[in-house]
Amino acid sequence: SVTIGVLNVSDRASAGVYEDTPGQACVALLREWLTTPFEVAYKVVPDDQAELESAMKQMADEDQCCLIVTTGGTGPAIRDVTPEATAAVCSKMLPGFGEQMRTTSLQYVPTAILSRQTAGIRGSTLIVNLPGRPKAIRENLEAVFPAIPYCVDLIGGPRLESNPETMKFFDPKGRRISTVIVWKPAEQVGAAIHENSSVADK
Amino acid sequence: SVTIGVLNVSDRASAGVYEDTPGQACVALLREWLTTPFEVAYKVVPDDQAELESAMKQMADEDQCCLIVTTGGTGPAIRDVTPEATAAVCSKMLPGFGEQMRTTSLQYVPTAILSRQTAGIRGSTLIVNLPGRPKAIRENLEAVFPAIPYCVDLIGGPRLESNPETMKFFDPKGRRISTVIVWKPAEQVGAAIHENSSVADK
Amino acid sequence: SVTIGVLNVSDRASAGVYEDTPGQACVALLREWLTTPFEVAYKVVPDDQAELESAMKQMADEDQCCLIVTTGGTGPAIRDVTPEATAAVCSKMLPGFGEQMRTTSLQYVPTAILSRQTAGIRGSTLIVNLPGRPKAIRENLEAVFPAIPYCVDLIGGPRLESNPETMKFFDPKGRRISTVIVWKPAEQVGAAIHENSSVADK
Repeated sequence: SVTIGVLNVSDRASAGVYEDTPGQACVALLREWLTTPFEVAYKVVPDDQAELESAMKQMADEDQCCLIVTTGGTGPAIRDVTPEATAAVCSKMLPGFGEQMRTTSLQYVPTAILSRQTAGIRGSTLIVNLPGRPKAIRENLEAVFPAIPYCVDLIGGPRLESNPETMKFFDPKGRRISTVIVWKPAEQVGAAIHENSSVADK
Repeated sequence: SVTIGVLNVSDRASAGVYEDTPGQACVALLREWLTTPFEVAYKVVPDDQAELESAMKQMADEDQCCLIVTTGGTGPAIRDVTPEATAAVCSKMLPGFGEQMRTTSLQYVPTAILSRQTAGIRGSTLIVNLPGRPKAIRENLEAVFPAIPYCVDLIGGPRLESNPETMKFFDPKGRRISTVIVWKPAEQVGAAIHENSSVADK
Repeated sequence: SVTIGVLNVSDRASAGVYEDTPGQACVALLREWLTTPFEVAYKVVPDDQAELESAMKQMADEDQCCLIVTTGGTGPAIRDVTPEATAAVCSKMLPGFGEQMRTTSLQYVPTAILSRQTAGIRGSTLIVNLPGRPKAIRENLEAVFPAIPYCVDLIGGPRLESNPETMKFFDPKGRRISTVIVWKPAEQVGAAIHENSSVADK
């Protein structure tokens, strides 16, 4: 069975002041994109590094999540410590996730450079930081999700399958993909179309 | 009252061998872009990590600068230690600044990948590394400046206002901006135009 | 005399299971691009951080390599530790190399964000991580090579000259380059052409 962690990081949401919409937005996206059945380990925590690290460790080590997505806490303000907590619990960092998410957000807002989102690996768990606003969550997760199932596979996690109508996964080994993959980098004007055969050749 | 630190990092400038043009270029840009009155805390220091850290700490903690810009010392040579000094005095790093400045410089020179410029937060002070050549200083600071006032606000600094004829600031909360914002990412061919109302919606 | 290190990182290649094609691909590219005579310090090592660090130290400190290129071991899998070994032996990191290589690879595969390739400086040696597949090695090394001779010069290494038919080097000081430099950033649609005179002006 597959478990995915959703960690809503917010002082206000954890105090019940605001609705927990960012975490709910993540769950809705995962349901939209994944056809593999999965359970959600869900938690709302304040912007406190010790609590964040503890929640990530539990989701990774006890709940055996193959993927944890966090929402919020990645800006420059004093309470924003999600990237620090992520780095503290991970053995490997993946700077390409943050780069790609910032490049994507820069298409909409110049303040995207203030985001400190990152991603890393703890054991067999991939942890990805997302922003706090639901619209930005979709833009960011959509930009990196095609690479996530292959990453989960490389670190020993379960096989994740997508709904090809809504999300195309990419596997450089060409093992899993039965549909034509349309991959359009954020910075390219025209779409590059890779058919499965040419992908397998690479 | 608002104070901005300008830290000219150069063995030769600090020895009086060269004119202190990079620091002067920064001051001129700040005067061109900002309408908020501000004082400048100005210093020329050699490429020495201890002296650099000491100068940044004084500008942040004693002079209460909301922003410090450094010039020079970000290359690969043995004496280039500005990024290391910046990281040593900051509690949070903002990798998006370096990424955006390198992306911008890559439009002009492939050696832009040798730049190790970064940015970080110390208390209520944003520290941004810039290159040493005046022309590159303008290109780099122009690429990240639209996001700086919002960052200064998020870390508890003063409100900075711009001359909209020369520099458009961006505030995702739509509070400060009365003019149409034209934000053109470095890697986009066409300009994306966000009106204030749609920005406030995001 | 000039020595360049080629470090093929692979459990399987070091066990003789696979041919050592990635390392051979690197040597072939260096022979294609460089006209400066050079010797190759060549080694195949398993994905073991201690062995990797030891091999890099020997190539840098004893073989006096001005440049070391590694192949493989930069992904998210548990055995992939080349970036960690690189950071451990370097005094300065150059994040622009990893950013540029990932941007380049993103034109081909969305899984490029999983690459953790980086570069750094140890003494007078530049160390650059490359991927493991020969085709991706060419794409990645080609994207950063124009900046490498200037970097080697800045850290006190020898002068490297290229075959301008196959590789154009870039020197912001305009000292070495007798041919027109055509530099096309990966993310630009049109090529930007800098003539030597305008380069020297910058």
